[in-house]
Amino acid sequence: MTGDTQLDEFGLIAELLAPLADNKAAARLSDDAAQVAVPDGQALVISTDMLVANVHFPANADAALVANRLMACNISDLAAKGAQPFGCLLTLGVAENWDSAFLTRFVATLAEGLKTYEMQLWGGDTVRAKQGFAGLTVHGLVPHGEMVTRSGAQDGDDVYVTGTIGDGFLDLPDLGSAYAAPAPPIAFGQAVRGLVNAAIDVSDGLMADLDHICRASKGSIEIEAEAIPLSEAGRAYGDLAALVCGGDDLQMAFTAPPAHADILGIEAEKHRIALTRIGRFSADGAHAAILLSEKGAEIKLQKRGFRHF
Amino acid sequence: MTGDTQLDEFGLIAELLAPLADNKAAARLSDDAAQVAVPDGQALVISTDMLVANVHFPANADAALVANRLMACNISDLAAKGAQPFGCLLTLGVAENWDSAFLTRFVATLAEGLKTYEMQLWGGDTVRAKQGFAGLTVHGLVPHGEMVTRSGAQDGDDVYVTGTIGDGFLDLPDLGSAYAAPAPPIAFGQAVRGLVNAAIDVSDGLMADLDHICRASKGSIEIEAEAIPLSEAGRAYGDLAALVCGGDDLQMAFTAPPAHADILGIEAEKHRIALTRIGRFSADGAHAAILLSEKGAEIKLQKRGFRHF
Repeated sequence: MTGDTQLDEFGLIAELLAPLADNKAAARLSDDAAQVAVPDGQALVISTDMLVANVHFPANADAALVANRLMACNISDLAAKGAQPFGCLLTLGVAENWDSAFLTRFVATLAEGLKTYEMQLWGGDTVRAKQGFAGLTVHGLVPHGEMVTRSGAQDGDDVYVTGTIGDGFLDLPDLGSAYAAPAPPIAFGQAVRGLVNAAIDVSDGLMADLDHICRASKGSIEIEAEAIPLSEAGRAYGDLAALVCGGDDLQMAFTAPPAHADILGIEAEKHRIALTRIGRFSADGAHAAILLSEKGAEIKLQKRGFRHF
Repeated sequence: MTGDTQLDEFGLIAELLAPLADNKAAARLSDDAAQVAVPDGQALVISTDMLVANVHFPANADAALVANRLMACNISDLAAKGAQPFGCLLTLGVAENWDSAFLTRFVATLAEGLKTYEMQLWGGDTVRAKQGFAGLTVHGLVPHGEMVTRSGAQDGDDVYVTGTIGDGFLDLPDLGSAYAAPAPPIAFGQAVRGLVNAAIDVSDGLMADLDHICRASKGSIEIEAEAIPLSEAGRAYGDLAALVCGGDDLQMAFTAPPAHADILGIEAEKHRIALTRIGRFSADGAHAAILLSEKGAEIKLQKRGFRHF
């Protein structure tokens, strides 16, 4: 580290990021591109998600929060697709208030995430920006043709969700732990890859994300409102509609045949994942998820999810 | 297209981008991730570059210019590495003045680029941003282990550059054609992959980029000032130091053994590439490129390249 309060582009790359890219593909960012050998029999699962100041996090947010959210929202996509993290590229729009202390803390937190998820850093790009932003493009591995899709749900499938729903929405204002340091079910996602028919990560909001499965799988999902797993804070909040449409949970929603219920329960326990059956998929061409009260009446929702613009 | 002047996130993705992603890996962006099968015997070459309003292009720039520059600066990296374009992900920070007309023109230009370079669109992410930005993460293919690196230059290698130098710098103010619609030597890069020892794309500025080869290859490059290929505008401009340090040329600089001069000339002609020998590499551990006058005196340069922040 230099003693400057502001790193320049080459300092940021050479001093902070290059040491994280100590893998054969990236060779410590010593070239214009990474050269990546994909293991035989494996396909890549590729996704990208970015976070922008004042849209996805407060402009004065802690660097660790930004790094943790960035890593988690990308790992969450890999988890739902049943993929094993492999490598990623980082893009940074460095805002004026992102000084050396901020960048050092951001990169240190990113390094922890790379270690936790056993993912390589392959490259990236950094620019100066008025509005800070951070993006990752993540690459995972699955055996050829085995990525879990949105479109595979079968008539009569049970619908499950991991963890609790609504904490992303609830914690947005006070930067509490479920929002600031989410833990997507990455190992569980790989473990159940062959047991589930369709999956998605809960990022736009539970109802909006289940709608995506319904549209892709050409059916409908009936959700039992009282079955939705809530945290203590969620139960105290009271407004279920807000929690199921709030987004940013980074949990995994999926459908699976009823015959897999026991083995899914065993895998959940093994991976210390709270797993809850919340409804059923019907291949009726209706293309939407509906929320049902205990008495079986539909609970109408005005806004089904978080839109990024 | 809707009749709105402003597309929302889902409209942008569903109406404009999904039709471009009509390939097996992305399945018209119907899932959270693309599933990509890499051909046997091939390695991926992966790189990412982004452009930010008021840094890399004027905030009121033509959408076609932004799309062309974005595509070219990314393809340029693949060209210098000898890679064949394969697939990419797009990230967009949509500024307020990027209305439906802008986005439609941006995407149409991007589509032309994807067709020209035979590259698939695999996914992306779009957010609303105060300061517009656009990024691509590009994936190319090379036979395993055959990516051209910065580090392979050998003592006595000739140093070459394609096209003309300084037009990126010159055209920045008036958005002339070499800047607005650059054409990186992508087919030539693949054709000469086995003939060159080290390569880099000229993006930071010729001298700065040659410095990168010198550092990675542990040597020095002597450039003959009068050999540097200039356009008519470049010759008229007169200040060679500015042209060789100006950046954004998106040409290819490389080193190759003198024995390959003839075959390189033939390949250049075949691909209609202007190819010029501009100097020589020496494995002397000096780690820098120097510019020599006709009389052999060093022309001192104050600023060696463009820094992105």
